[in-house]
Amino acid sequence: MLVTSPLPAPIGVAVVGAGYWGPNLVRNFQSSPNFRLRWLCDLDVERAQRVLGGYSTVQVSADLDEVLADPSVDAVAIATPAGTHLPVAMAALRAGKHVLVEKPLAATHEEGLQLVEEADKRGLTLMCDHTYCYTPAVLRIRDLLAAGELGELHFLDSVRINLGLVQRDIDVIWDLAPHDLSILDFVLPPSVRPVAVAAHGADGIGAGRACVAYLTLQLNTGAIAHIHVNWLSPVKVRTAIFGGSKRTLVWDDLNPSQRLSIYDRGVDVASPEELGDEQRRDILVSYRSGDVVSPALTEREALRTMVDEYARAITTGAPALTDGRSGLRVLEILQAASRSLAEGGTMIKLNEGHMA
Amino acid sequence: MLVTSPLPAPIGVAVVGAGYWGPNLVRNFQSSPNFRLRWLCDLDVERAQRVLGGYSTVQVSADLDEVLADPSVDAVAIATPAGTHLPVAMAALRAGKHVLVEKPLAATHEEGLQLVEEADKRGLTLMCDHTYCYTPAVLRIRDLLAAGELGELHFLDSVRINLGLVQRDIDVIWDLAPHDLSILDFVLPPSVRPVAVAAHGADGIGAGRACVAYLTLQLNTGAIAHIHVNWLSPVKVRTAIFGGSKRTLVWDDLNPSQRLSIYDRGVDVASPEELGDEQRRDILVSYRSGDVVSPALTEREALRTMVDEYARAITTGAPALTDGRSGLRVLEILQAASRSLAEGGTMIKLNEGHMA
Amino acid sequence: MLVTSPLPAPIGVAVVGAGYWGPNLVRNFQSSPNFRLRWLCDLDVERAQRVLGGYSTVQVSADLDEVLADPSVDAVAIATPAGTHLPVAMAALRAGKHVLVEKPLAATHEEGLQLVEEADKRGLTLMCDHTYCYTPAVLRIRDLLAAGELGELHFLDSVRINLGLVQRDIDVIWDLAPHDLSILDFVLPPSVRPVAVAAHGADGIGAGRACVAYLTLQLNTGAIAHIHVNWLSPVKVRTAIFGGSKRTLVWDDLNPSQRLSIYDRGVDVASPEELGDEQRRDILVSYRSGDVVSPALTEREALRTMVDEYARAITTGAPALTDGRSGLRVLEILQAASRSLAEGGTMIKLNEGHMA
Amino acid sequence: MLVTSPLPAPIGVAVVGAGYWGPNLVRNFQSSPNFRLRWLCDLDVERAQRVLGGYSTVQVSADLDEVLADPSVDAVAIATPAGTHLPVAMAALRAGKHVLVEKPLAATHEEGLQLVEEADKRGLTLMCDHTYCYTPAVLRIRDLLAAGELGELHFLDSVRINLGLVQRDIDVIWDLAPHDLSILDFVLPPSVRPVAVAAHGADGIGAGRACVAYLTLQLNTGAIAHIHVNWLSPVKVRTAIFGGSKRTLVWDDLNPSQRLSIYDRGVDVASPEELGDEQRRDILVSYRSGDVVSPALTEREALRTMVDEYARAITTGAPALTDGRSGLRVLEILQAASRSLAEGGTMIKLNEGHMA
Repeated sequence: MLVTSPLPAPIGVAVVGAGYWGPNLVRNFQSSPNFRLRWLCDLDVERAQRVLGGYSTVQVSADLDEVLADPSVDAVAIATPAGTHLPVAMAALRAGKHVLVEKPLAATHEEGLQLVEEADKRGLTLMCDHTYCYTPAVLRIRDLLAAGELGELHFLDSVRINLGLVQRDIDVIWDLAPHDLSILDFVLPPSVRPVAVAAHGADGIGAGRACVAYLTLQLNTGAIAHIHVNWLSPVKVRTAIFGGSKRTLVWDDLNPSQRLSIYDRGVDVASPEELGDEQRRDILVSYRSGDVVSPALTEREALRTMVDEYARAITTGAPALTDGRSGLRVLEILQAASRSLAEGGTMIKLNEGHMA
Repeated sequence: MLVTSPLPAPIGVAVVGAGYWGPNLVRNFQSSPNFRLRWLCDLDVERAQRVLGGYSTVQVSADLDEVLADPSVDAVAIATPAGTHLPVAMAALRAGKHVLVEKPLAATHEEGLQLVEEADKRGLTLMCDHTYCYTPAVLRIRDLLAAGELGELHFLDSVRINLGLVQRDIDVIWDLAPHDLSILDFVLPPSVRPVAVAAHGADGIGAGRACVAYLTLQLNTGAIAHIHVNWLSPVKVRTAIFGGSKRTLVWDDLNPSQRLSIYDRGVDVASPEELGDEQRRDILVSYRSGDVVSPALTEREALRTMVDEYARAITTGAPALTDGRSGLRVLEILQAASRSLAEGGTMIKLNEGHMA
Repeated sequence: MLVTSPLPAPIGVAVVGAGYWGPNLVRNFQSSPNFRLRWLCDLDVERAQRVLGGYSTVQVSADLDEVLADPSVDAVAIATPAGTHLPVAMAALRAGKHVLVEKPLAATHEEGLQLVEEADKRGLTLMCDHTYCYTPAVLRIRDLLAAGELGELHFLDSVRINLGLVQRDIDVIWDLAPHDLSILDFVLPPSVRPVAVAAHGADGIGAGRACVAYLTLQLNTGAIAHIHVNWLSPVKVRTAIFGGSKRTLVWDDLNPSQRLSIYDRGVDVASPEELGDEQRRDILVSYRSGDVVSPALTEREALRTMVDEYARAITTGAPALTDGRSGLRVLEILQAASRSLAEGGTMIKLNEGHMA
Repeated sequence: MLVTSPLPAPIGVAVVGAGYWGPNLVRNFQSSPNFRLRWLCDLDVERAQRVLGGYSTVQVSADLDEVLADPSVDAVAIATPAGTHLPVAMAALRAGKHVLVEKPLAATHEEGLQLVEEADKRGLTLMCDHTYCYTPAVLRIRDLLAAGELGELHFLDSVRINLGLVQRDIDVIWDLAPHDLSILDFVLPPSVRPVAVAAHGADGIGAGRACVAYLTLQLNTGAIAHIHVNWLSPVKVRTAIFGGSKRTLVWDDLNPSQRLSIYDRGVDVASPEELGDEQRRDILVSYRSGDVVSPALTEREALRTMVDEYARAITTGAPALTDGRSGLRVLEILQAASRSLAEGGTMIKLNEGHMA
């Protein structure tokens, strides 16, 4: 579990961006005793005011410089389009503020790297809002994998499909796959990592970018991870299957009464050494058909836990669980996936080991 | 709907193979007035006798020649391992019998082609038991696509996963994907066809062959079809989403009370010509959020309908809905998928147009 | 659909009670342009302040008189325990304020009647917060029944079970059944009404009051309505089946993608006059097996619609859709159910016709 | 688990009745090595022949006497309408045959009693085909209750609804509730038993008998059992919740991958003695929110297990798990329910203790 040690004095924070995601940050910073929300900043101040509502004492501004100049602001949270992350976050870092950035960390790996290096240089917290990593379900999956409850991971199959908002600037991979990739990055044990990715996709509706896409990742262990993201599905599905050598975990995020199910069912293959000559042809495979356990999960809003982790990282100076480097690793896969998509599905090697 | 005109006299039939699938054929031939089951043939006559039970008048034999020499046998149905399809079916054709073969048609495209040519030469029916094509759901999907109810097909996403019997000789693609590929072949309008396929997979359990696999097919229209087959999933899923320009159909084969759902929900993109300059940036996309309709389906066993279609083809001399050529088209994709899998996911072009 | 005509000036409103339900009222009044939230009143001002959070300009008070004395307060919304509804609402009415009361309207039918009469005398709006009536699903059910889409109602089966908060002062019937009873009152055509009720229940855990209960209502048409309420179920179920002579509607409130399903399936019985003597024994019953339609629903928060309806009633002077009289009708059934429960399940006649 | 000791020689058996249920008995007797099916007897021999199909060596007859006169027939299985159970079963017993009767045991408790006494007198097996009791799920529920895994049973809520065949002679209670009542009888520990029943119902469609009904049973422990049976529901539901003091079990018979779920979730009430004065008002209730476990079940056809139990009872002379007395206990409740229904829902006491 995450341990949070609240500050004596709350951290002054400003939210930048009052669009789709900003209001959620506003609400969670307001309800956290670790933070004091000072500003909501948006180029459209009326939108910002609407988000705050007619009863709020929080200040609004269209001027980022004004916000960054406020010494009561210790930290910022950026929920603007990905293309603006570099300038906004860089300005904040240079103003000496801790920075939380909505996923993806930046528009490119190169831009993200600039942010990571700037934060390192200044000793500031740089955190990526990989919200799903802070759901009780994903935190539990991480613990289960770390404790070896599933054994070796053989395959991961993740499906995230819905009738989605077709984005103007990015395709469905950049819109939705950061969730799955950040979860993968978060739950995998340190010794396991993706080494290559291939992507296939289709536009379908003539939107000018992929609206349906499939990512296949090779892991260094020989395991496979596969991600289906889709803006065009009238049915909403958010499931992931973590197939392990000992047990298999199914995460159905739309089933609140049973989000996680751990199946003690599977296929075992005897190693040839254990078998006599006769058997070798016939008894290779056996099946387990055990119980299914659905562990009880607390129902805590992920964003609230994420906000507390931001406070912890700022206070202790230790990297956040989803720090800038995790954002970089996700960006590297996204870029490789885009290249694969452009090349008709070529498997692209990742260099991720180099900088982590 | 299928129209069946029963023969005056029932067709004498012999089932070859009393393993996993044979008993289903035995049961359905026995309950069809169009057929008279004469023999159940299996190398293991005790197994054949067990399938028939202790109360049957049907003859058993371990000797295919004996069965084929019986003039009361007009037709055979072969449910033996794929590797034996060529010799068994060829012997039957050469004995002048009509032939029904369990999927896949043969172990290779080349072998399948020999069977098609032999049947053509002799004017005999050669049919492939693509059972799923005869489910009320798939027959309805075919009708809906033909009638344009879904509009243009944009994507197909098919998932067929379960804790499966790991096969000794074939991988999960050859075991399960014939279902999805034969359905695809069956429901697509004549002008739409796959032109390339890529496959990724993983072994996972050390079975020596892919136990988890993903197929991506490019269609000649630019649409995408994707198939997930998996022997290692403790949860059973059999769904397919047919995303169309007008409506999207979801087939959930494990939901008997609502197998098909037609969603009048989707994303529409205005064509640029319809838009003024101002709009071009902003109003490209609109969303439909209409009703969902689940059409009533009859609950008829697919094998029963398949058996009737076999009778119809034999009687009329017209090709069966799933004739040898459809089996060949499936084989071609399977072979290309195997090649792609071996090459790490390369997209392999199909030559399917050449011979159909 | 509800038509709302917003006031030129927003209605000043005070929320009384900052416990379980009050925060929801606070949030919805704040986001409605029809209202201006002036006060949150609770005996525990710290609790009230916590509900408002650290950024609010809304005033708090522990003193109801202070709130009622504020001339900028036109209306109050009461979310205190049922036992206090009479004095709090009566004080508000006597201060000339419109009143919205959380369900149930009062602790007894007699107390509720006093409130209805006081509001009538003073020409003030008295409304009961039967929240579920304002869900898109229930509004649609009401429309469907009114339009005759289901035909005559034959039976209603409602299940509302969950691991619930065992209440200190009331049993599960008074806690949960007001939802079902208010929905029933809301959707039934004017000519159809309950005429008797029986209740069975069990304590189970030694809580000193029924934690599991079943209500059976006879309607004046011969139809039956049955309600299962349960605090002890680890699974959450919220379904209602409206069985009609033409179609049957199933409401599954926990299935956001398909809350309503209208089944064109059912049993038809031919009237004896239509049948010859021979047939009378044999062909009485026929079955329809038509499509299922799930109408698209807007996803609007019920409380928001309820708040708008409160504004409409205040502004126009017309009774709210869930006015005090509907609250009274629900109270009468609750009291009769309690009497039946005490008497071991006797069917208790309702006098509801007398005063509505 | 059931222990079966197959006979050296199979038991000769005749099935009487080739209607809805008879074919299932035919199939299961044929596949059991414990039995040799000698006859299928039906007034309509063509129907009987159709059930056997065109390949069977089993004899058919319209003449019960002929069948009973066959010395190779040791046992009969009766699947005729309930009104005929007495004469058919009595004739079989008097001919010295063991008897299995489809539920309900007879048309009335009085008739059932005659059969029980006749079988006792002759030392013959009389068994009632309460099929559901032999499902892996119910067998497991029985074990769990016996082992105290659920603690004390607080409530049972059973729902068995579907678009059903409206019967000509019996109402929905007599058609469907025998399933639930026999299960209740089967799984309850010996010290727990129903002591009273009330029934409410409605006709709805003018069928002349209840098509929707609710049974409420009081158990001698203060627990409640409630059964909803319904012929008019377009959705099929077969669930039962067994609420216990320690755990709660949910049986969803239509969810093959998770039929049973055991919830370690619930409400605990501290006994007053454990509490101080202060606490007594406030800390009465606590909540458990533990894991859910779905035990692995074998997938064995219930009828096959029932048939084996029939063989065991015949061979050993010990009463079958669902012997004639269990059939009598179910009949007593059915009759009391009918009386309650006729009297508008009066709670009717059961005398069941007297004869069991």
